[in-house]
Amino acid sequence: MQLKVYLSGEIHTDWRDEIRAGVKAAGLDVRFSEPVTDHAASDDCGVAILGDEQDKFWHDHKGALLNSIRTRKGIEDADVVVVRFGDKYRQWNAAFDAGYAAALGKSLIVLHGAEHAHALKEVDAAAQAVAETPAQVVSLLRYVLTGALPRG
Amino acid sequence: MQLKVYLSGEIHTDWRDEIRAGVKAAGLDVRFSEPVTDHAASDDCGVAILGDEQDKFWHDHKGALLNSIRTRKGIEDADVVVVRFGDKYRQWNAAFDAGYAAALGKSLIVLHGAEHAHALKEVDAAAQAVAETPAQVVSLLRYVLTGALPRG
Amino acid sequence: MQLKVYLSGEIHTDWRDEIRAGVKAAGLDVRFSEPVTDHAASDDCGVAILGDEQDKFWHDHKGALLNSIRTRKGIEDADVVVVRFGDKYRQWNAAFDAGYAAALGKSLIVLHGAEHAHALKEVDAAAQAVAETPAQVVSLLRYVLTGALPRG
Amino acid sequence: MQLKVYLSGEIHTDWRDEIRAGVKAAGLDVRFSEPVTDHAASDDCGVAILGDEQDKFWHDHKGALLNSIRTRKGIEDADVVVVRFGDKYRQWNAAFDAGYAAALGKSLIVLHGAEHAHALKEVDAAAQAVAETPAQVVSLLRYVLTGALPRG
Amino acid sequence: MQLKVYLSGEIHTDWRDEIRAGVKAAGLDVRFSEPVTDHAASDDCGVAILGDEQDKFWHDHKGALLNSIRTRKGIEDADVVVVRFGDKYRQWNAAFDAGYAAALGKSLIVLHGAEHAHALKEVDAAAQAVAETPAQVVSLLRYVLTGALPRG
Amino acid sequence: MQLKVYLSGEIHTDWRDEIRAGVKAAGLDVRFSEPVTDHAASDDCGVAILGDEQDKFWHDHKGALLNSIRTRKGIEDADVVVVRFGDKYRQWNAAFDAGYAAALGKSLIVLHGAEHAHALKEVDAAAQAVAETPAQVVSLLRYVLTGALPRG
Amino acid sequence: MQLKVYLSGEIHTDWRDEIRAGVKAAGLDVRFSEPVTDHAASDDCGVAILGDEQDKFWHDHKGALLNSIRTRKGIEDADVVVVRFGDKYRQWNAAFDAGYAAALGKSLIVLHGAEHAHALKEVDAAAQAVAETPAQVVSLLRYVLTGALPRG
Amino acid sequence: MQLKVYLSGEIHTDWRDEIRAGVKAAGLDVRFSEPVTDHAASDDCGVAILGDEQDKFWHDHKGALLNSIRTRKGIEDADVVVVRFGDKYRQWNAAFDAGYAAALGKSLIVLHGAEHAHALKEVDAAAQAVAETPAQVVSLLRYVLTGALPRG
Repeated sequence: MQLKVYLSGEIHTDWRDEIRAGVKAAGLDVRFSEPVTDHAASDDCGVAILGDEQDKFWHDHKGALLNSIRTRKGIEDADVVVVRFGDKYRQWNAAFDAGYAAALGKSLIVLHGAEHAHALKEVDAAAQAVAETPAQVVSLLRYVLTGALPRG
Repeated sequence: MQLKVYLSGEIHTDWRDEIRAGVKAAGLDVRFSEPVTDHAASDDCGVAILGDEQDKFWHDHKGALLNSIRTRKGIEDADVVVVRFGDKYRQWNAAFDAGYAAALGKSLIVLHGAEHAHALKEVDAAAQAVAETPAQVVSLLRYVLTGALPRG
Repeated sequence: MQLKVYLSGEIHTDWRDEIRAGVKAAGLDVRFSEPVTDHAASDDCGVAILGDEQDKFWHDHKGALLNSIRTRKGIEDADVVVVRFGDKYRQWNAAFDAGYAAALGKSLIVLHGAEHAHALKEVDAAAQAVAETPAQVVSLLRYVLTGALPRG
Repeated sequence: MQLKVYLSGEIHTDWRDEIRAGVKAAGLDVRFSEPVTDHAASDDCGVAILGDEQDKFWHDHKGALLNSIRTRKGIEDADVVVVRFGDKYRQWNAAFDAGYAAALGKSLIVLHGAEHAHALKEVDAAAQAVAETPAQVVSLLRYVLTGALPRG
Repeated sequence: MQLKVYLSGEIHTDWRDEIRAGVKAAGLDVRFSEPVTDHAASDDCGVAILGDEQDKFWHDHKGALLNSIRTRKGIEDADVVVVRFGDKYRQWNAAFDAGYAAALGKSLIVLHGAEHAHALKEVDAAAQAVAETPAQVVSLLRYVLTGALPRG
Repeated sequence: MQLKVYLSGEIHTDWRDEIRAGVKAAGLDVRFSEPVTDHAASDDCGVAILGDEQDKFWHDHKGALLNSIRTRKGIEDADVVVVRFGDKYRQWNAAFDAGYAAALGKSLIVLHGAEHAHALKEVDAAAQAVAETPAQVVSLLRYVLTGALPRG
Repeated sequence: MQLKVYLSGEIHTDWRDEIRAGVKAAGLDVRFSEPVTDHAASDDCGVAILGDEQDKFWHDHKGALLNSIRTRKGIEDADVVVVRFGDKYRQWNAAFDAGYAAALGKSLIVLHGAEHAHALKEVDAAAQAVAETPAQVVSLLRYVLTGALPRG
Repeated sequence: MQLKVYLSGEIHTDWRDEIRAGVKAAGLDVRFSEPVTDHAASDDCGVAILGDEQDKFWHDHKGALLNSIRTRKGIEDADVVVVRFGDKYRQWNAAFDAGYAAALGKSLIVLHGAEHAHALKEVDAAAQAVAETPAQVVSLLRYVLTGALPRG
């Protein structure tokens, strides 16, 4: 069994690398996808390719629409969508991705610290699992793929 | 033509009342639905009906799942989903609803102040309209239903 | 707001009547549907209408297929599917209905005694609410439709 | 032609091994998937990975939700879902899987002893075939893939 | 409960009238639809409205496409599709409608004499009921709607 | 039987009025919808409601997105989509609507002069009927609803 | 580009072999599937594997249901469904397959002699192409895959 | 990550070659598909394979239906549909493809000169990106696949 996993949300810590490394170490058959995680490129891609905008709103809009090609492809192809909520920024796009994934019937794993539990209760309620650490996500994927539990 | 409109998001200002009043004054055929907007009831509904939980996480979880019956019904039945982002709280459930609506192909109207434009660019990029005031939403609905524009 | 509710499962106690009465007393706009609850008619309908079968398997098969016209119509039209598990019989058809409803994305309320919680954990995990009494189901429907909680 | 087959239901006998062995001996192109069949791991996976729960209900709930990632992936990817009903336990999850598969339009093969025929009539009525032995399932898969019948 | 029933197939006997009369006599809430049953109009509608064709193939084609507007509307709106196979003609359009309805997940009732059972086995296998007489179809609809069986 | 009909395309002749008048005269049960047909309002609606744009592209974009709320609602609710191609302008939005309707499986009636037949062959090939005059569309709708043909 | 093609219908002439041979000679990337074409096996498969039936109707029923696993898999996986109507038998299953394929939005090629054109007009009206010979079907597939036309 | 890209629209300039060459030079994992771009073959394919028609309308119709097998396969399999509007002809089929793709939820890139912006505003409003040159499309695809922006 192979799982296709989309890693959505926070782009300012290395949680994706931790999950990738853990999955690799465990020898699991997982195919990852993710948004463009270079913040500057992600913000400016629209105007960089399609031409400048004077109005910041349309600058952002062109970029966000372009990024949506990759995001939608990633979510729609995925079996499991992991959404990470970090400590900075509003991260409304992460919650948007979670809603998008839920409406498509994708399995959802939400990854966040306990301090955000109340604010994320509607997102968590749509999830198959709520994890606090990338290591837990690796354990979840290992269990789903192999049935093996962490040694106690 | 009748429009079914779901009013998602902020529950601490009277923006829903403004839209309802404006739509009524304009004589438009709109059927509204919305989440339970009583904050305390919305937080405690799960345990109030189904029994107490010691753990706050499950207290929240029971309530969020119960609220999702109404939220999903509202969004799935709607032609248009209006999502309001206010100034307080994280409002991840509003962004979640927007993503859910977008994935179902609903027409989306996002309502927020200009100061949130950058943080909401992915949500706005999925929308048919981005408004700043409830009065604009009323004008939008009037135009969609009747073709009439505001007098300049 | 109107809710269409399908009442699936146990046919040997009067739980459906309790819910109907409670909903009526609360003045809620709910449209119920349900399977044929006359056990003998439900078992024999196929042969009674379409002709006898010597083999019990086909006797049952004709009836079950005929009953599925009503069951599928009820579930597919519903916003909410309530599935009751009682104390007698295997009730595999109730669990089948729950799976069918879950796959269609229907909101699911499971109604059973605490003694069945472990055996029903996969069904409960797909549900928006797990209730123990018909009165709780009435309270749930009232909250979903009106936002009102039971008085403490 | 390749068939993807999900093997749902009973986890206390070796019926899956019999089918796998028969399919291998027949040289058929079948890709199997199945739930985690280690009963203890399946029961405890949620708390083992995501942390303990004091309440048995939530202990079960976390595990059941986590298991649903694998179960839904398996059923949704399958061409054929085989559901085995054995003699022990209530097996409501097996019936739930059958309903889930039926709603998705999957071909369904139900495997059970004749003594359960009446109780399973609604499940059987949704199936393409009702078998009593794993060997029959192998014969069914062989016929579907190659057109060959068992030698009489 | 109301049922929407599409009456497909044979147009040279009065079986539709028998079903309508029986349903009316039984006081059932059924909304019927059906193809245009005037054979000449049905054959010539395309050229009568849109202009003559020299080639018989295109004469037929224009008519068949035009009739498909009504046929598809009828089947797609229906809860139950009844397909009648009579004794004359090839009736490939009846079997086509049955396949179309089955693929959409509609409940299917096939109505034919026993002499056609072998030739219709694939169609019957997709059906919820196989009836021989219009009176049986009335009984079926009555049972589905009211749970009442014919008096023995 | 009622038909919901969306009238897409050309907004500079009175073809919609002709169809409405003909349908009314024939006493047919048709519910029409259509885009906003006031050219100036349709072009400027976005900026008139949501604020000016300096760039003509975004001026148009805001208007087109807003109009899409009505257009998509109209097409998605329709049983039949009539698309009229006139003599002026590029009318790419008419062809876009036709493609949109075809992908949703709507019945499509294309209305255009013979001189456009070659250029519209891909659109016509997706249609149930190709008409040259509004009167023919009225006859088509009458036939679909009543089975009556024009008197020769 | 690869095409997946399901070859439905007549099983008493070698038209499938002609198409396979022609496609192979043309070096096209086509993956074929088809029903079991051994008439006796197809009729008796149900009882041969799952046990005898006294009643011919159920003998047929078990076989037809079992065959539907392969037929549905073939049609649902196909890009193009070719349906051949020959001169013998009623061939209602071929028309059923055509309707099933049409409802799923599959491209449909109907293959029959001119003498059946009137009786098949509804089926032909749902098709992308109506061919008279297997060689034409090969030419169609070659054109779709390569753009090459037969040399005149 | 691999992208499947369908290149729709204008067939009289070499824009497809430019995109293919640019994608190849950039080493991107893109699988292209496209309509038959030989204008004469595309116009005459129907009659060349299936026999002459006297009436030009049906000559065109047979060809357009046959071409739709390839077009629909290409669009339905694609992640991204690029639609090019050139300077010649009406190009209604390009706009039709855009509408078809939009209704299926495909990511859409529209490629046209600024002079067509107003006429294409409804099409552009459904797109993730509006480009003016094939080189921009290559840059878009590179960014989507790799996150790399053009060097400024």
